[in-house]
This record gives sequence, C-alpha cells and structure tokens, in this order.
Amino acid sequence: MASSKVTVTIIGFGAFGQLVARLLAPYARVSVHDRSAVAMEAASALGFDLVARIEDIRADVVILAVPLRAFDEVLRAIAPHLRPGQLVVDVCSVKEEPARLMSDLLPPHAEILACHPMFGPQSAKRGVENSQIVLCPLRGARWRGIARFLERVLKLEVIVTTPEDHDRQVAMTQGLTHLLAQVVASLGDRPAIRTRSFDLIAEGLALVANDAPEVFEAIARGNRHFAPMGERLVSAIRARI
Amino acid sequence: MASSKVTVTIIGFGAFGQLVARLLAPYARVSVHDRSAVAMEAASALGFDLVARIEDIRADVVILAVPLRAFDEVLRAIAPHLRPGQLVVDVCSVKEEPARLMSDLLPPHAEILACHPMFGPQSAKRGVENSQIVLCPLRGARWRGIARFLERVLKLEVIVTTPEDHDRQVAMTQGLTHLLAQVVASLGDRPAIRTRSFDLIAEGLALVANDAPEVFEAIARGNRHFAPMGERLVSAIRARI
Repeated sequence: MASSKVTVTIIGFGAFGQLVARLLAPYARVSVHDRSAVAMEAASALGFDLVARIEDIRADVVILAVPLRAFDEVLRAIAPHLRPGQLVVDVCSVKEEPARLMSDLLPPHAEILACHPMFGPQSAKRGVENSQIVLCPLRGARWRGIARFLERVLKLEVIVTTPEDHDRQVAMTQGLTHLLAQVVASLGDRPAIRTRSFDLIAEGLALVANDAPEVFEAIARGNRHFAPMGERLVSAIRARI
Repeated sequence: MASSKVTVTIIGFGAFGQLVARLLAPYARVSVHDRSAVAMEAASALGFDLVARIEDIRADVVILAVPLRAFDEVLRAIAPHLRPGQLVVDVCSVKEEPARLMSDLLPPHAEILACHPMFGPQSAKRGVENSQIVLCPLRGARWRGIARFLERVLKLEVIVTTPEDHDRQVAMTQGLTHLLAQVVASLGDRPAIRTRSFDLIAEGLALVANDAPEVFEAIARGNRHFAPMGERLVSAIRARI
C-alpha cells in the first residue's frame, strides 16, 4: 500500500478523523473534506490536501469519520459521484446501522468496508500497535489489502466479523466502558481513600471520558444491544445491594 | 519498632492475615492464633509462633484478621484477658461497625486502633509501597508509633480519619469496585472485541475478583453507605439506557 501511495480522503476532521489522518499520512496521500471552514483550515495547517466540495472526492479510499446522525446525509451526497472500484470505509463505533445505510445508499459499483478501530484519541497517544480493529467486509475484495496493511504495517490485531456480531460484542465492552465512565463521573469527585483496583478502573474510564459526545450517542442510541446490557447491569446491581 | 522487636499476635490466618503476617515478620515477633487446626499448621509451616488458646494472647499488638461476623465472638473471647496497654487493631474493610464493637466490648485499659489497609492479597503482589492505609484511632496513643512505622518503614500513605468518614468514602471506591467486579462477572465471558479502556477496567476488577467472599460481605452488609451508592448507580444507568 505504501509503495503505490494510495489516495485517501477523510470526510470529517473531528478528533477521530484527525487521528486517522495522522496514522495514514506516512503511507497514503491523505486529503480531507469537512463542511466546517475551521476544520478545513486546521487540516490545511497540518499539511493535508483539501477537497473543498464533497462531489469532487476521487480518492481510492473514502473514509467516513462523521457522527452516525450525519451518515445518511453524507452518503446521499457522495453516492452519485463515486467511481467504480472506489472503496468507502466508515469508522463508526457501531456497525449494524452504518452497514445498512452504506449498503442501501451507495451504488453497486462502489466497494464497502464497515470498520471499527477499537482505540480512540486518548488511548492512541501510547501508540496503536497491538490494538484491535474490527472489519466487516460488505462489498468488493479490496478490504483484503487493507486488512494486510493494518496488520503488517500498523501492527493492529484485525478481527473480521459481521456487523451484528460486532455490535453484540462491543455492547459488553465498549458500551459498558462508556456507560460506566458517565455513571461513575455522575457519582461526584473521586474520594481520597482509594484502592489500586479503583485507580486502575478510574484510569480505564479516563481513556474515554473526553471522547466526543457523538461517540456515546452512537454507542448508546445506535447499538440495539446497549440498552439490554444496561438492563442486565441494573438487575445484577439490584441483586447485590 | 524493628529495634524493640514488638510482639504481634494475628488472630485469623486467612488470606489477609497471612499477608499481614508476611509484611510484619521482618520487623516484629509475629505469632498466630486461628481456631482452625489446618490454618495453625499452615502458620507453623511458615515459621510463625503459635498461640494455641485465645485466652493466652500476651502480645503488645493484637491484630484481628477475622470476618466481620466473627468479630463479636472474638472480642468477647479476648476481652477478659487483655493486659493494660495492649493494643487491639482490626483490618476490616468497613470501620463503623468494628469500631463500635471494639469500643463496646474491650476493657478501658486496652488501646484500640481501627484500621483498613487499602490493598489486598492480589494487589500486594506488586508490593504495598505507596498504597494507602486508613487509621481511625479510638483509644490510647500507641497508634502514633504504628503510623510512623507504616509510613517510614512500609512506605504506606497513612490517612487518619473517623470510621464514619472512612465508610462514606470507601463505599464510592472499594464498594463500587467490588460491586462492579461481581456484576461484570455475572454478564458472562469477556468478549473477543475489546478496547484498552475495557482491558484496564478488567485488570482493576481482576484485583478483587478472587478476594474472600467475606470481604464483599463486609463491604456490602457492613457499610451503610453501600446500598445508597448502588441505588445512585442504578439511577445513573437508568438515565442513560
């Protein structure tokens, strides 16, 4: 992938889009589109090429780093302009809903890969090596090259599965983590008397505490396994208090 | 303390009593009493002196490392035999109830220190240095020497407070941790797809997962701030699912 200098356009230059841009910059020609002028200036200042109009995206790989609620609009905007063989990849924290939207709204000649990097701007500060990334191939075969790149170059652990299986599993891990981060924060300031166990948990929760509100929104509202996980949590707590 | 070779008898040679014995052995003459013959054999095999009958404890410091539910019985057994100036210390995970029992049942000539080491057999494997220990002095002044020893020799962070303040604070840290450990375990096996945040939390929960059931029993049943903390947790979860 590095030798052919694949072209990548990232739509959405928020915290996660910026992380993706930084990770791919050494290996691909990365350009950015964001509807916000401020975000575009930031991308330009960081040396990325800009694609001013969403209709003009010609990159080999188009990465959607936008909130779930903007998905429908962005997909409808890019769909009529995609070339045969262009690969569209999302990085949303849930997979069933984005997978359905991409399959429904993108033309049959576009390849589609639903994807969830299991790291965020906070945890990536220590490097992403050995972190997980989930791939749900939906259309086309180019994802295999992407998987090899992620595994061999970025040293990620690639997990290939279905959107359904992804959402069911992450409800119990990422969903639980984000829910606890919010819930524990709501209990008030951290007391002075603590255990190591508590400190480790607090460290884990701190990794997601500053994530964009859209992340929790996607996890909580976009994953149909989230509320049932919460209900099980409530029942398990009630049984012990 | 090391120079005068203070004598210490630990009542109860369970997981925590063994940890205390091991920590103090280099600095004090440690003996053990346990009503279980198997535990006494284990203590003897580890080279500790044994005190066969609970009436015969003559040590300068008597450490109660027994479950909260055995407190009443043990205190009544030792009370008539305590010498003036002997110091009785507990290591229970809650402080209000043991403090009340010790104050009520021990003779006025015995000194009393309620104490909670904020580490356990699992977390202590990495050493206890910089861990916290809470002291609630109830009677006498010998606790000041103990505090100096804990701080200067064992390098612990000593926190002096009241039993009430301790219980209120630890409900939000240790109570929360132990509750989550049980609750998360009840949700089933750890999924393959995880985040770093989740892994850190799981690591924190693992530190208490193997604690004796008596620890959770003391934290859950012996701390009047535990159930209200659980109720706040439930409300906070309900508000987000």
